[in-house]
Amino acid sequence: MDDVLLTVINPNTTESMTATIGKAAAAVASPGTTVRAVTPAMGPASIESHYDEALSVPGMLAEIAAGERAGSDGYVIACFGDPGLDAARELARGPVVGIAEAAMRTASYLGRGFSVVTTLGRTIGRAQDLAEHYGAARACRGIRACEIPVLELETDPAARDRITEECRRAVAEDGSDAVVLGCAGMADLCAHISAAVGVPVVDGVAAAVRTVESLVALGLRTGDRGEFATPPAKAYTGMLSEFQIR
Amino acid sequence: MDDVLLTVINPNTTESMTATIGKAAAAVASPGTTVRAVTPAMGPASIESHYDEALSVPGMLAEIAAGERAGSDGYVIACFGDPGLDAARELARGPVVGIAEAAMRTASYLGRGFSVVTTLGRTIGRAQDLAEHYGAARACRGIRACEIPVLELETDPAARDRITEECRRAVAEDGSDAVVLGCAGMADLCAHISAAVGVPVVDGVAAAVRTVESLVALGLRTGDRGEFATPPAKAYTGMLSEFQIR
Amino acid sequence: MDDVLLTVINPNTTESMTATIGKAAAAVASPGTTVRAVTPAMGPASIESHYDEALSVPGMLAEIAAGERAGSDGYVIACFGDPGLDAARELARGPVVGIAEAAMRTASYLGRGFSVVTTLGRTIGRAQDLAEHYGAARACRGIRACEIPVLELETDPAARDRITEECRRAVAEDGSDAVVLGCAGMADLCAHISAAVGVPVVDGVAAAVRTVESLVALGLRTGDRGEFATPPAKAYTGMLSEFQIR
Amino acid sequence: MDDVLLTVINPNTTESMTATIGKAAAAVASPGTTVRAVTPAMGPASIESHYDEALSVPGMLAEIAAGERAGSDGYVIACFGDPGLDAARELARGPVVGIAEAAMRTASYLGRGFSVVTTLGRTIGRAQDLAEHYGAARACRGIRACEIPVLELETDPAARDRITEECRRAVAEDGSDAVVLGCAGMADLCAHISAAVGVPVVDGVAAAVRTVESLVALGLRTGDRGEFATPPAKAYTGMLSEFQIR
Amino acid sequence: MDDVLLTVINPNTTESMTATIGKAAAAVASPGTTVRAVTPAMGPASIESHYDEALSVPGMLAEIAAGERAGSDGYVIACFGDPGLDAARELARGPVVGIAEAAMRTASYLGRGFSVVTTLGRTIGRAQDLAEHYGAARACRGIRACEIPVLELETDPAARDRITEECRRAVAEDGSDAVVLGCAGMADLCAHISAAVGVPVVDGVAAAVRTVESLVALGLRTGDRGEFATPPAKAYTGMLSEFQIR
Amino acid sequence: MDDVLLTVINPNTTESMTATIGKAAAAVASPGTTVRAVTPAMGPASIESHYDEALSVPGMLAEIAAGERAGSDGYVIACFGDPGLDAARELARGPVVGIAEAAMRTASYLGRGFSVVTTLGRTIGRAQDLAEHYGAARACRGIRACEIPVLELETDPAARDRITEECRRAVAEDGSDAVVLGCAGMADLCAHISAAVGVPVVDGVAAAVRTVESLVALGLRTGDRGEFATPPAKAYTGMLSEFQIR
Repeated sequence: MDDVLLTVINPNTTESMTATIGKAAAAVASPGTTVRAVTPAMGPASIESHYDEALSVPGMLAEIAAGERAGSDGYVIACFGDPGLDAARELARGPVVGIAEAAMRTASYLGRGFSVVTTLGRTIGRAQDLAEHYGAARACRGIRACEIPVLELETDPAARDRITEECRRAVAEDGSDAVVLGCAGMADLCAHISAAVGVPVVDGVAAAVRTVESLVALGLRTGDRGEFATPPAKAYTGMLSEFQIR
Repeated sequence: MDDVLLTVINPNTTESMTATIGKAAAAVASPGTTVRAVTPAMGPASIESHYDEALSVPGMLAEIAAGERAGSDGYVIACFGDPGLDAARELARGPVVGIAEAAMRTASYLGRGFSVVTTLGRTIGRAQDLAEHYGAARACRGIRACEIPVLELETDPAARDRITEECRRAVAEDGSDAVVLGCAGMADLCAHISAAVGVPVVDGVAAAVRTVESLVALGLRTGDRGEFATPPAKAYTGMLSEFQIR
Repeated sequence: MDDVLLTVINPNTTESMTATIGKAAAAVASPGTTVRAVTPAMGPASIESHYDEALSVPGMLAEIAAGERAGSDGYVIACFGDPGLDAARELARGPVVGIAEAAMRTASYLGRGFSVVTTLGRTIGRAQDLAEHYGAARACRGIRACEIPVLELETDPAARDRITEECRRAVAEDGSDAVVLGCAGMADLCAHISAAVGVPVVDGVAAAVRTVESLVALGLRTGDRGEFATPPAKAYTGMLSEFQIR
Repeated sequence: MDDVLLTVINPNTTESMTATIGKAAAAVASPGTTVRAVTPAMGPASIESHYDEALSVPGMLAEIAAGERAGSDGYVIACFGDPGLDAARELARGPVVGIAEAAMRTASYLGRGFSVVTTLGRTIGRAQDLAEHYGAARACRGIRACEIPVLELETDPAARDRITEECRRAVAEDGSDAVVLGCAGMADLCAHISAAVGVPVVDGVAAAVRTVESLVALGLRTGDRGEFATPPAKAYTGMLSEFQIR
Repeated sequence: MDDVLLTVINPNTTESMTATIGKAAAAVASPGTTVRAVTPAMGPASIESHYDEALSVPGMLAEIAAGERAGSDGYVIACFGDPGLDAARELARGPVVGIAEAAMRTASYLGRGFSVVTTLGRTIGRAQDLAEHYGAARACRGIRACEIPVLELETDPAARDRITEECRRAVAEDGSDAVVLGCAGMADLCAHISAAVGVPVVDGVAAAVRTVESLVALGLRTGDRGEFATPPAKAYTGMLSEFQIR
Repeated sequence: MDDVLLTVINPNTTESMTATIGKAAAAVASPGTTVRAVTPAMGPASIESHYDEALSVPGMLAEIAAGERAGSDGYVIACFGDPGLDAARELARGPVVGIAEAAMRTASYLGRGFSVVTTLGRTIGRAQDLAEHYGAARACRGIRACEIPVLELETDPAARDRITEECRRAVAEDGSDAVVLGCAGMADLCAHISAAVGVPVVDGVAAAVRTVESLVALGLRTGDRGEFATPPAKAYTGMLSEFQIR
């Protein structure tokens, strides 16, 4: 198998979170894979609203374009809202996988149902949309928030215990076979929670890294005959003129 | 009833299309309504891909922010992909309505089923997503493309006939009671096609203008107790720093 | 814009309830609209069962026929079960809107989900059917009964507080962004409850009046090429012979 | 097993059609069952629109009330639109079954999918609603109209061949394992078509008769603890005052 | 009506349970029906896992083959997981009905919703799959386990009370109009629980017996033109070589 | 990463097909993976009916049990009907993946929709059930049969061209972004068809091998706290007594 260059994009601009994500990605990557964990040059410090998510997309897409220039074989979008996934698929030659998508599909192999445990309650709606979109609405038995802001995952010493406790409740109350961690910033908690709660726990970053590797190994990439062909060339105006495709 | 200031945002940067949209909006607005049709300062000249759509959102959101400063009572997002709608709802005090959403819900009052007739085939997937998201998947009996690029709607002399013909086929083959025009740039074709085909034809711009007016008249705006509360304040970096909410 | 004659039909035979409904309708009608609030000459005093609902339909349809003779431009069916809506659409030239339909679609513009608060628990099933039928099953997060009979809404001094309290619980427990009032007899409670609970509250009568006005303004009426064409002429026998279409 | 009195209600007022239905019912009834086939005293001569259907309900309900006085053990509503079924269930002590409901559920035992072959195209929408309501939307692979008015089923010598031909197409094009006849007036065609087309053909009248018999034999009737309890007593006004429940 | 030979297969190997099932079947069978209650020669003593269910199928299918040789007119598969139903339908000339299928469809005639009360919690997932598959996902409002192993239904003196209590809770908490007993071993509890709880209670064995009788009386059997035609002949190897179809 | 022992079970008893499957599996397996391709000691020569499928399960489960004794880390069930998957998950300590499941989930990463191209038309129903069960009903835009019996895939010189042609039609007529091959016996056609048709083509064997490897690498296996715990111990009778769990 040839070497694989895998770009993992943290769509927010917080470098320390990119480091956490990159470490989680590297920990599960196959021997031949090089992980490039990148941080966009523009956008929000964390993604906790539809507004943050929408505005994370240009920076994320710029990283896809940069990845294409760098010869990246595939991409992970490492935010649980899977921001800009369809647009990224139009732009990239290789496969692009979002961590919510990968986590939900991966969890579906582990039993009948899973629960998602995430950060703020206001992001639950987006996760519901994604579960519906990915065909996981029936398998997804609950989406639960810990009300911990994204960036406090790294600083709040009580965060790990609160998340673990919510995972425990999810299993007991939702009757789930597995838990999905609903934020890229939780990537390092996976093993601890699985051991504590006694069910498989899926981190989307790890799941997405393995999924992209598999797609590359199987020679599979986004179909480009219709909806996901390269976007038509056209004028882009103002601050976003650098995004113009020619 | 007090006067209403209604901002209609064309999310692409083509001024002539904003003019068409603005005219269609003004034609159906109630006497007390002032229509502000605006063009973003940045973004794509037309929206024909997920990539275009994603990159139209920052410019659109900047117009929401400007509208808020100008005291706008409500907003129409005048692109059939309803780009950035959830983010706009977090940002605006008043109601925000997308033209696909308004057109599909309005058509649902006119019978059992409708067909959508749109521009390029590659945008059909997005329209399917929206129909599903708005609960119109059963009512939406077909989405059909004329393969006319958005900006050629204004310049191609054969466009009107091809769209009319596709509407006629939609009614015959899909068994639809009504037709929805799937692009803001078709706003001026509504009466012509309805007369030619003999079924009600819904233009989303007109439908959305009346819908926002009604919501304002009823004192209704986006619920702001949970998912659609004002986004949490945080740092925004780089080219998008002007989007930071404080 | 030309003047609009809008017929609002209270499908039960209680005149005082027609007055409440008529007042709510007039309060939100546009300047050029004349509201005719009418009471059927036959049928049940209130609608609290499938039996009541079925037997309200002939009287309601007689009012549609009378409205057609009077030149009515559109119709509201002002009972939350939307009785006889499809039949009315076959009969009327202009648009016909039910208050459950209008309330649910209007509430869908205000966030991700709404709750319905209604009178008797035995009517919840009908509301579930309608939510499903209108594509609002996902958006409708709960339907809750106060166990107040319809006609006691006008006489029970505790009714307002019990309904308000149930609305408060709906928001807290269902995670809804908005509340829909599930009975035409609650039309006058809207502003009070919205202020008390802090979320948008939708009254179906008001929503339907504005919706019909909009459809009329947009030149839209029920498609009449198939299912909703005028019913075929045929013999009607017995007590219902006056309903015969010739 | 005790003797069973089974009332089969033809909801339209055409006596010759009641005779056809009664004959079909008697042909499949068990030895101990007495079939009462009845015609309402009021209503439309045939049911071919939502309007006809709505106005058939009072006459049908009057027959339920008469059946209760006569000690009927159960009821069949013998029109494929299942008019007034929920209301009838509130009124009757014993089970009530509609022929569309019985036909669709019965056909579901015969393979993966069935097609419905019916009279006029304008009634297809109602059949779709029922398929959805009864949980048969996936199993129902097609609903096809022969464009034969209901009362011409008895008089048009070409009717049988056209219906048979449409059944043949249904099997070939929809990939259905069985066919459901979509009108009570087709009850006598069942054996002929099944022999001609080579698949099981379900007549709703026969299916419903056997279903009601089975429910009676099993001691099962509509649950009456909630939605389907006897309707609350109240005033009924005008021409419908005889329907008042005391 | 001709005499009917009806084979009721208990897919587990516990003879005493076959006796209970056979008694319940005989109690509701019509006068002309002969019930053959049979026990497979191989398989699990009870069915409480996917593993048990899968391994009950060969023995069950051998009984179908034996029934065909004996001239059986139809079959009931008397385990609430409906094991091997599709395969049995390919093999049998006459109709085959599973007790979950019959119970859920029968309960659907009795109101808007039902609850299932079953044995072990680990079997709930299978019942959910079946409800979904049979189009009863909306009608099925809850599936509840008593945590009584199947074979203890016959020996545990407290079983009846626990099941009755769970049925009572199901009605109160799920708002169900009827209860479905989720195990063939509960067939003898039906009347007791219905009297105690005050709602109709459906035993699948009884429901399936009457359903098969009805299908036979109506001349209906599985469509055999496509998916359910006799399986193609081919070599069968090893211990299962006796299952080879020639 | 430690070495992985991966058991790929061909659920039919045709050794040459096991060889094809084993080769396809080995071709995509990661360096550290050892593929054990096994053939059951009992069962059908090919799986082309529900009957075949049901009777392939005991042999398949015996291979799971043998794999557990051999220390297998994970399993692939290499028949597109995913026979016995839930039972296998109860039995195995490590993850178990079916090829239909893996193929459909993998194809979902490649665009909006895929088509399945399979062998006999009578197996389409099973594939529809699986698509529904795995949440892929919306993504799966068509299931098409070539009417080539499974074992003729290896012997019919025209098979490859017919399958390729059907794949081409699937893309053109269904508007799919990718094609899924609906039989393990097609595993060696993947590259050829993808090159010929110009869209990504997913072979389930390859997809499942990579999926199991990923799950093992991520430390994930079936949740065993509820439905998928080890089956309760009990007596197994007759020919299947060797399947008894103690």
